[in-house]
Amino acid sequence: MRNEESVIEGRNAVLEALRSDKTVDKLFVMEDNNDGPIRTILREAKKQHLIVEFCKKERLDQISVTGKHQGVIAYIAAYEYSSLEDILNVAKEKNEDPFLFILDGIEDPHNLGAMIRTANLCGAHGVIIPNRRAVGLTATVAKASAGALNYTKVCKVTNINQTIDELKEKGLWFVCADMGGEEMYRLNLTGPIGLVIGNEGEGVSQLTKKKCDFVASIPMKGDIDSLNASVACGVLAYEIVRQRITK
Amino acid sequence: MRNEESVIEGRNAVLEALRSDKTVDKLFVMEDNNDGPIRTILREAKKQHLIVEFCKKERLDQISVTGKHQGVIAYIAAYEYSSLEDILNVAKEKNEDPFLFILDGIEDPHNLGAMIRTANLCGAHGVIIPNRRAVGLTATVAKASAGALNYTKVCKVTNINQTIDELKEKGLWFVCADMGGEEMYRLNLTGPIGLVIGNEGEGVSQLTKKKCDFVASIPMKGDIDSLNASVACGVLAYEIVRQRITK
Repeated sequence: MRNEESVIEGRNAVLEALRSDKTVDKLFVMEDNNDGPIRTILREAKKQHLIVEFCKKERLDQISVTGKHQGVIAYIAAYEYSSLEDILNVAKEKNEDPFLFILDGIEDPHNLGAMIRTANLCGAHGVIIPNRRAVGLTATVAKASAGALNYTKVCKVTNINQTIDELKEKGLWFVCADMGGEEMYRLNLTGPIGLVIGNEGEGVSQLTKKKCDFVASIPMKGDIDSLNASVACGVLAYEIVRQRITK
Repeated sequence: MRNEESVIEGRNAVLEALRSDKTVDKLFVMEDNNDGPIRTILREAKKQHLIVEFCKKERLDQISVTGKHQGVIAYIAAYEYSSLEDILNVAKEKNEDPFLFILDGIEDPHNLGAMIRTANLCGAHGVIIPNRRAVGLTATVAKASAGALNYTKVCKVTNINQTIDELKEKGLWFVCADMGGEEMYRLNLTGPIGLVIGNEGEGVSQLTKKKCDFVASIPMKGDIDSLNASVACGVLAYEIVRQRITK
């Protein structure tokens, strides 16, 4: 369920939101609607790489809170996003090696919330999520984060791989979780680090895995395939914490 | 949502279920209903320490699948429970020190499912849950366990503290998670061990904490109180795995 204040409806209101510094998480547009204002909204959305879902009038009526959507509805992030610079500054201010979570394509809001909660408690300086094909900072995520979203900075980026390259230039190392990797206890995970966790079903993408300096595996003795994504994230994050504490 | 086969309705069917080896997770009885068959059912339920919820006819109508509940409905466990002996035998067969999870009062089925999933993958031999004030093996738990419930044995006990005493006599040590404890990296968590995780809101009960040989804390650097219960369980379980591997 969305809070009323995080749904924006009608052409002028949506266009205004797109041109403000509000972060639009998702845009719903009535299909077969090609008049001027809608075209302007779509142009703006494309510029910002937003997710646009074209749907029937009935679906919009269903989503609508006011009943006056004029063929377009925008979901606004329940929380403000930060910039990459903001996150790196947190590390700098604390005089610590940067420690970031890169959560690539998490779909379940409870998982994303639990991971932001873990990021807060394990001393990570921020969380990076992608613009597309992932859940944003919705009210459910905020609730599952148990308040952590009020403290831990989250940055949304257009291209995760590009962001990894950028951060590598700033001296960060990257580790991702994958069954085929080296047992995590044998890796050196101290220093400035980004922990990459992939989508619940598919894991880390091939391209992103290639970009990572380390591929870490969590020892698995069981009969099934993988841990819950937020549990795996917690286990790896705390291996990093252990190495930082006991080095 | 319950599967049809896990809901049993009507006086004879429920009484039969209570007297069979099926595990009743919860019993709904219409309030102010005191005739003979209902009294027999309640007597049987008391003997088995079951959770009984007295409710209005409208509520029973709502829960009912067949529409013919005759004032009583029982929820049957979606999976069969194992005995404590079964679980200890798994360890014996593998020639390993017993490693058990004791999940005391987990309320969220997604958390319970994720923890059973972790138990399977970290090589724990079984999971112990209490009879009362906790979620049982429902269809949601099974789904969240991602198949682990087909492999990992779960035992339901009437009194967690009594079970801990019993297992102590068999040589197990117990560790629970609590903020006030010793940093987990400094404890020796090898050997036959039971990992105790408390309720999502209240943590481990005072009495249970006293029974534990170790109180372990996960290092917390953040602004909020605690990790998600299934994440905390995963982090501690893997600290035990690490110590077993690297000792």
